[in-house]
Amino acid sequence: MGRNSAVVVPVDVSPSYQVRVGSGTLVEVAGLVAEATVAVVSDDRVAALYAQQLLETLEGAGKRCRLYTVAPGEASKTLAPYERLLRALATDGFDRGSAVVALGGGVIGDLAGFVAASFMRGIACYQVPTTLLAMVDASVGGKTGLNLPEGKNLVGAFWQPRAVVADVDLLRSLPARTFRQGAVEAYKHGLLADEGLWRRFQRGDITPDLEPLAMSAFVASAVRVKATVVAQDTFETGNRAHLNLGHTLGHALEAVSSHSLGHGDAVAYGLLFAGLLATGRGWRDLSDELAAFLEWVSPDPLPTPTFDQLEPFLDRDKKNLSGQRRFVLLRDVGDPVVVDDIDRDAQHSAWQALVRSYG
Amino acid sequence: MGRNSAVVVPVDVSPSYQVRVGSGTLVEVAGLVAEATVAVVSDDRVAALYAQQLLETLEGAGKRCRLYTVAPGEASKTLAPYERLLRALATDGFDRGSAVVALGGGVIGDLAGFVAASFMRGIACYQVPTTLLAMVDASVGGKTGLNLPEGKNLVGAFWQPRAVVADVDLLRSLPARTFRQGAVEAYKHGLLADEGLWRRFQRGDITPDLEPLAMSAFVASAVRVKATVVAQDTFETGNRAHLNLGHTLGHALEAVSSHSLGHGDAVAYGLLFAGLLATGRGWRDLSDELAAFLEWVSPDPLPTPTFDQLEPFLDRDKKNLSGQRRFVLLRDVGDPVVVDDIDRDAQHSAWQALVRSYG
Repeated sequence: MGRNSAVVVPVDVSPSYQVRVGSGTLVEVAGLVAEATVAVVSDDRVAALYAQQLLETLEGAGKRCRLYTVAPGEASKTLAPYERLLRALATDGFDRGSAVVALGGGVIGDLAGFVAASFMRGIACYQVPTTLLAMVDASVGGKTGLNLPEGKNLVGAFWQPRAVVADVDLLRSLPARTFRQGAVEAYKHGLLADEGLWRRFQRGDITPDLEPLAMSAFVASAVRVKATVVAQDTFETGNRAHLNLGHTLGHALEAVSSHSLGHGDAVAYGLLFAGLLATGRGWRDLSDELAAFLEWVSPDPLPTPTFDQLEPFLDRDKKNLSGQRRFVLLRDVGDPVVVDDIDRDAQHSAWQALVRSYG
Repeated sequence: MGRNSAVVVPVDVSPSYQVRVGSGTLVEVAGLVAEATVAVVSDDRVAALYAQQLLETLEGAGKRCRLYTVAPGEASKTLAPYERLLRALATDGFDRGSAVVALGGGVIGDLAGFVAASFMRGIACYQVPTTLLAMVDASVGGKTGLNLPEGKNLVGAFWQPRAVVADVDLLRSLPARTFRQGAVEAYKHGLLADEGLWRRFQRGDITPDLEPLAMSAFVASAVRVKATVVAQDTFETGNRAHLNLGHTLGHALEAVSSHSLGHGDAVAYGLLFAGLLATGRGWRDLSDELAAFLEWVSPDPLPTPTFDQLEPFLDRDKKNLSGQRRFVLLRDVGDPVVVDDIDRDAQHSAWQALVRSYG
């Protein structure tokens, strides 16, 4: 694949936008940004790798740019860095006609996205994800958010980007294990709505050293699932909740480990947990496939609280509308459903099975 | 007018909502709130007067409610109280199916509105304005916002309420001068788009002691102008900017006085300033009428910086898209236009005329 020959995935929200996936697409950002003044938001680690190239292409296109960085990591997804960024943008004269470009992983996308959503009641935002996880999930769909001490993503907005640019060349700098952890959400997208993508994982076709053309096709197929779900349910009043497959337990594991367990690892455990619950319900038994995938991910060890200790964290998930504990389960690959009537014993047993195997 | 016979002004945004103006309409709030759990946000002063009645009607309708109050005044329209409210809502178990009811003036509407806009990426919001200013302006149209040290309303969102309830009985507790200051935005709405309303002011028909029926009709007519403008330009990309008539100087006067000059007073001066600029341009000379209105308002004394000192504050207004200083002027009553080519000498002269008369 030559430079700039991107795979384009449309996101049919209002207004619609494109996700451009390819090798060397970072240089396309300047051509997509319509605004003359641009605040690039990144973290120190990502900025050291890619900010200069991005700023040069933006400035080469006649934009006035400034780079703002925060510390890498989840701690930057909070109100204090948010306030510092807002004040810096105000001080530096950015206005309603300016744009924010989020250059980084999910934390930066969420933080910079909420800055864009709320600075002067909302300015243009462009997402330039630099991790696989952000490319296939967080950068698409307009969810922005910050954490409070009381829980994750409790503050934020739906704020769609004007465009998303995923340059798969940026994935080459990732360690293989980071790639595999980032692939968990792509795997989940396969389970939800793209059996071909799921089978590629199960066959072992998805690897960190894919050629650019194959990597772009892989990333684009995962993005396509996300884009379809988002277009059908932009504000998560319905089927967008299916994207939480594996996340009820996943979020609980992240919380109970004080976020020492990474998101991809936690969701990988959560997918198997959901698989066990679905099997218990008599639906397709995917536990062997899910266990094989979990092995491929090689997650950090499972935290092993008792089920009693885990339960408050299961109930803290903000998707619980009615006080019922809700799970997304698969009747089959491509056939997800939300259930809120899994009895506690079944949950307890599935948790114990997980602990026996991975604790 | 009997209790509950409200004047209904529709706001045709998507989704549309109603502004219900009347005597005793506070009790209607419970019937309008669809959600089962309700966070009422108010300030200590307003809450002491009206919170109990509102909570009783909500609880009488089977809602679970909790009251949150902040200190009265502009200082509560900042990120610190915003964070405290968000954390309290999270701690107290509010979720995506809950509602926020903003009970208060413009500060509370802006603060509670932005909490609703961003808590769990947005929950239902109801505006219950308790001042004339908030009834005829801030509560309608979905603008929410907080101040930064760098300027006013630099953070916020467009977040339309599900309903607005304006109970004119609440205006009876206001001092007459507060009523007149609050009437400035209503007067501005008359100037912009309702000559009949404007003439009622000029004739002296608008007074703090209007009967409930007449008061409701007056408030509703001012709301109708705002609702029409908002429906035409929800996100202020066009003619909604006309609502800033009088506000370029008004905001500058507020800032230069460190907000010791109230908003109504500042805009009243700003309306006359805009009138002088329009007259200088050869448009209808309304300066006698505007001066008479200013006298009726009886504003606090005009701050008297030199024009050089004032200019940075004129340029800080966030509506300046391009670095040009923009003013909304009237070619005639009902015929506003945005101009950005008023030369500095003309501005300087108008300012000096204002200082000579009111400094």
